[in-house]
Amino acid sequence: MFSNNLLMSPAIAGVIGLVLAVALYLRVKAQPAGNETMNRIAGYVREGSMAFLVREYKVLFVYAIVVGLVLWFALGMVAAGSFILGAFLSLLAGFFGMKAATYANVRTTQAAATGSKPAALLVALDGGAVMGLSVAGLALIGLGCLYLKFDGTEEMGTILHSFAVGASSIALFARIGGGIYTKAADVGADIAGKVVENIPEDDPRNPGVIADNVGDNVGDVAGMGADIYESMVAAIVSATAIALTIPLEGLSKLVAEGADAATARTAGVMLPLLLSGLGMVISIIVIFAARIFKNGKPATVLRNALIIPPILLTIASYIIMPIFGISQTVTVALAAGAFGGALIGLITEYYTAARPIRLVAEAALTGAGTGVIRGLAVGMESTAIPMLIVVAAAYAADHALGLYGIAIAAVGMLAGTAVVMTVDAYGPIADNAGGISEMSGLGKNVRDITDELDAVGNTTAAIGKGFAIGSAILTVVALFSAFNMEVNHVRIKAGMAAMSLELTTSGVLIGILIGAILPFLVGSTTMTAVGKAAQKIVVEIARQFKEIPGLREGKAEPQPARIVDIATKAALVEMILPGMIAILAPVVVGFLMGPQALAGMLAGSLAVGATMSLFMANAGGAWDNAKKFIEKGGLPGHPKGSDAHKAAVVGDTVGDPFKDTSGPGVAILIKVMSVVSLLIAQLIALK
Amino acid sequence: MFSNNLLMSPAIAGVIGLVLAVALYLRVKAQPAGNETMNRIAGYVREGSMAFLVREYKVLFVYAIVVGLVLWFALGMVAAGSFILGAFLSLLAGFFGMKAATYANVRTTQAAATGSKPAALLVALDGGAVMGLSVAGLALIGLGCLYLKFDGTEEMGTILHSFAVGASSIALFARIGGGIYTKAADVGADIAGKVVENIPEDDPRNPGVIADNVGDNVGDVAGMGADIYESMVAAIVSATAIALTIPLEGLSKLVAEGADAATARTAGVMLPLLLSGLGMVISIIVIFAARIFKNGKPATVLRNALIIPPILLTIASYIIMPIFGISQTVTVALAAGAFGGALIGLITEYYTAARPIRLVAEAALTGAGTGVIRGLAVGMESTAIPMLIVVAAAYAADHALGLYGIAIAAVGMLAGTAVVMTVDAYGPIADNAGGISEMSGLGKNVRDITDELDAVGNTTAAIGKGFAIGSAILTVVALFSAFNMEVNHVRIKAGMAAMSLELTTSGVLIGILIGAILPFLVGSTTMTAVGKAAQKIVVEIARQFKEIPGLREGKAEPQPARIVDIATKAALVEMILPGMIAILAPVVVGFLMGPQALAGMLAGSLAVGATMSLFMANAGGAWDNAKKFIEKGGLPGHPKGSDAHKAAVVGDTVGDPFKDTSGPGVAILIKVMSVVSLLIAQLIALK
Repeated sequence: MFSNNLLMSPAIAGVIGLVLAVALYLRVKAQPAGNETMNRIAGYVREGSMAFLVREYKVLFVYAIVVGLVLWFALGMVAAGSFILGAFLSLLAGFFGMKAATYANVRTTQAAATGSKPAALLVALDGGAVMGLSVAGLALIGLGCLYLKFDGTEEMGTILHSFAVGASSIALFARIGGGIYTKAADVGADIAGKVVENIPEDDPRNPGVIADNVGDNVGDVAGMGADIYESMVAAIVSATAIALTIPLEGLSKLVAEGADAATARTAGVMLPLLLSGLGMVISIIVIFAARIFKNGKPATVLRNALIIPPILLTIASYIIMPIFGISQTVTVALAAGAFGGALIGLITEYYTAARPIRLVAEAALTGAGTGVIRGLAVGMESTAIPMLIVVAAAYAADHALGLYGIAIAAVGMLAGTAVVMTVDAYGPIADNAGGISEMSGLGKNVRDITDELDAVGNTTAAIGKGFAIGSAILTVVALFSAFNMEVNHVRIKAGMAAMSLELTTSGVLIGILIGAILPFLVGSTTMTAVGKAAQKIVVEIARQFKEIPGLREGKAEPQPARIVDIATKAALVEMILPGMIAILAPVVVGFLMGPQALAGMLAGSLAVGATMSLFMANAGGAWDNAKKFIEKGGLPGHPKGSDAHKAAVVGDTVGDPFKDTSGPGVAILIKVMSVVSLLIAQLIALK
Repeated sequence: MFSNNLLMSPAIAGVIGLVLAVALYLRVKAQPAGNETMNRIAGYVREGSMAFLVREYKVLFVYAIVVGLVLWFALGMVAAGSFILGAFLSLLAGFFGMKAATYANVRTTQAAATGSKPAALLVALDGGAVMGLSVAGLALIGLGCLYLKFDGTEEMGTILHSFAVGASSIALFARIGGGIYTKAADVGADIAGKVVENIPEDDPRNPGVIADNVGDNVGDVAGMGADIYESMVAAIVSATAIALTIPLEGLSKLVAEGADAATARTAGVMLPLLLSGLGMVISIIVIFAARIFKNGKPATVLRNALIIPPILLTIASYIIMPIFGISQTVTVALAAGAFGGALIGLITEYYTAARPIRLVAEAALTGAGTGVIRGLAVGMESTAIPMLIVVAAAYAADHALGLYGIAIAAVGMLAGTAVVMTVDAYGPIADNAGGISEMSGLGKNVRDITDELDAVGNTTAAIGKGFAIGSAILTVVALFSAFNMEVNHVRIKAGMAAMSLELTTSGVLIGILIGAILPFLVGSTTMTAVGKAAQKIVVEIARQFKEIPGLREGKAEPQPARIVDIATKAALVEMILPGMIAILAPVVVGFLMGPQALAGMLAGSLAVGATMSLFMANAGGAWDNAKKFIEKGGLPGHPKGSDAHKAAVVGDTVGDPFKDTSGPGVAILIKVMSVVSLLIAQLIALK
């Protein structure tokens, strides 16, 4: 049904993406990098980011070796190799993307310093595109090669699952470690700078500011990149896993009536990858179209970049599917996911930008307590519509194509990964550019340009975050189905009855209740980690102001490296506990209590994790933007520095770990647990 | 198997409890009530409380009539009557208990004024016991009469479910309305008094203080009473419902081997009520024993009162069961629930009293933001052990006696209702007593006694709250099983296959995701309600200080009635939306999407609701006690009024609606949805 050339197309699309990423990287690096002060500051940020990445990678190297050996022992050498490959490509994408981001930040500032907003936008966008194209490109190359080599073999499933576990593990640690780093530095520098020492944000005297800027890179670029890479891989793998194991009638709607069963299976296995390749082609077009429109309003350019891919993807699928004798039900499922993702992004923007943030700001008029209460209420309310969108997408996809359709919807939601990641990585670059211009003492005109780019970045970050969580939820639903298919596939082959997952079975019920706890444990450990590390940073900053003569007067240099070191150590130590919870929980429950209880656990943690991560991410976004709303004069008579503003700052502080550490941490928890469960399914299926 | 006399015993135990409640009520009322100032203040509180109750009851009257008519139409007159009875008895218990509490508060103050701590403890305890004995007594009388009249009839199930829905509905509105009232008044009075006007807590010049004291009664006495009454009723009804509908082999472990099937069914139907009657007898003994030990340390007296009932219940069951040929598996299930409940209470105490609150207090040293972060982390962590205790209790009970055993465990957890409620209602009485002594300007000696009683009340309140949520979770698990039994019972009678609740069915999965949203919506609406009402109260208090000449100097009287009115109106209006969500969600999903999706929804909201309510209740308790810890000098160098204390006050403010409005609101949400589902099960079973 598919020619060999066609089967190579996803990997080729990946290679093209990667080549373009390298080209953009070289273009960014070739831009003028500004004066000596700017370069010194940018150098600190780059070195701090790279130093963190190197130390993090050392830890992850040990982890990968240990888990790799376990997998070699349990599932064979090829599985272990595939696991290492999945992990390695994630690290590579993170490394490359962050390198680009830390060159792009200061060059964006310099472009703004020459007075050209379009040029500044372009540099930031190109810097982001390196990450976006690398993430999607490497995922396609890795998976594409595995498909070509192992398609049709007995071990195909195991190899893909191992690759996904490699991707997941790195994402887990990168996301949680990066999240702890970035928010410990942010909260610590803010509290010390604003409250203890009373100096403005991004003031060069504050030794925590460099760490804060480093944090933007390790959290929002490297962490987010690993996260999205993992989602894309997991969506493709879950769809393929379902296609490999589902009873054939489950794929009957996939191909034209009358087509034989083997055709349906082949189509089902290859389609997820082919559709993702198609998504890559569309993403490349959209990214380069956005570059052409660089003279437009930055907000419009970026927003369109997020909305257009689903439209193009749907049209392309509608045209292409009949050519290969594949039913348009695939287009329906694909579109349900793709549009669902965009919709969730827009809803997230509403809850972190429109009326809700005005309410949070107004609640801060009567104090920090009422401001925090209102933000929590907004965050809770904001869970409903995204969940209903996921439900609607899943329902439509299931109706069109059965369980396999739900996985295709997840693939559709993540087909535009390169664009989403581009726009996401743009945010911290613009944010850094503003920080560098402030720290370098560049004029108000420069700061005005970087501020506008940064403000757009905040909106796109909110959209991106909503999208990341939404796609995580749908992917987990798909992975959950894949896990159950895999278990039953093994059981039926062994002559056993399919596993009963009746909700009333005590194993399932108990699993659900245990699963409900896990997101709270990850939330608790990550919140605690940020709080503790931030306190240490505050103490160190206070020490520097006390012990370094002339620092307060701006006559002496602060010691940013010490703050970077505290944040790095805290992140690397504190990421271990939540990481271990995520990886070991399914293993322990699966082997001790069996596949039923594990399925229940996945369902329980899906229900809690999905809503908790939306709640935390959106409450955090609402507090953040309520503070900014007040700073921009949204509450007349209550300017920056007023009691209402101080009250809003408390909300923002609470929201920092909520939205950038715990919220994303919980979302990745449920993904990792599902992927690990899928991998061990065959080992526990007969229990 | 059981003689007729024996079958009457639960109702008789209920009557005895009620007679003792009346006797204690008269004894409380006969105590000296202190001087004219004390009486005037206590009068305000009593009138405010009763005025709220009367207005609330008017709203609930309309609600009961409407729903009663719907039930009459859908399920017949007897069901409607049973619904009204369930609701009426709840109202009666709330009314009577609150009347006693509002007499007991000032009499406790007066006993403290005579210098006798034991006498003061006794009055407060007696006041609480009126509520405790009424709640359990009326539940037993109501259910006891229904069992005697309808046992063996076809409509037994429907009638019991209707009674439970009546109890649930009232509990829902009383808990949410009372919760909004008490925390709007508390937060409003605190912010206005401490922040805006800088006058001490419970200062008689603050017009919000009366409303705050009224709130303690309507929230923590009437609201909590209705809540626990509902749990007790729901546990008994769920066990009976399972016994009525479960295939007979599901009850085979209940009776000695060789006993015939009909015996098992009869035993299964009557046991829940009989065991609750036994619990009542034990509770009465424990309450009167506590009275005898009134000279002991108040903390020890009350804590023992909570720990002893499970021990006595287990011993009694162990002795009695063989007499009637019933297997000791019942004792195992009963003990699992009873000890589980006590354990959850103790864990809750740990998280809101020991090391965790020191950590929260220390985090407040670097500001309100870090204090709030740490409290959230503590709350999240605190969900794990109580959930695992519920899991262990359910597992043990299921292992011993199957699904029916889980319901018996819930019955066991709630068998000590009279004691738990006594100790719970003691808290607000002691709290009010302290407030009255402060407002009446009584000396430090008096305040020292009431402070000690109040401090104990805070601990017991934490234990009681943990117990209430823990028992709610276990009851919901039982109700969930009962719902599924009922649906399948109807289906099989109609010749259909049993409903499949496979987790992988899209209906079930979609139900789970929808169910996950609902606790967040109830959390959001209740948090918003408290925030909005508190802001209104702050504005009104500020107005009074501005417009009433001499108020600030203590030469003029404030106008507390206006604050009471604002809080009352807010509570009655704002309770409607969350209440409607709870009642209508299962009806809408059940009738539109069928029983599978409804079962999924119940499971999803159980997973999220159980953890969210524990999280919110315990985070709130931790913040509250961290603030008190600082006030008592726990952080040397940071006394009351320091920056650290102010930061801790922010946490306390956030925690107020968390622990007393939204947390309990979510717990009751999942109970109400399950009870309503059980009632409509027969109407939607064939969909």
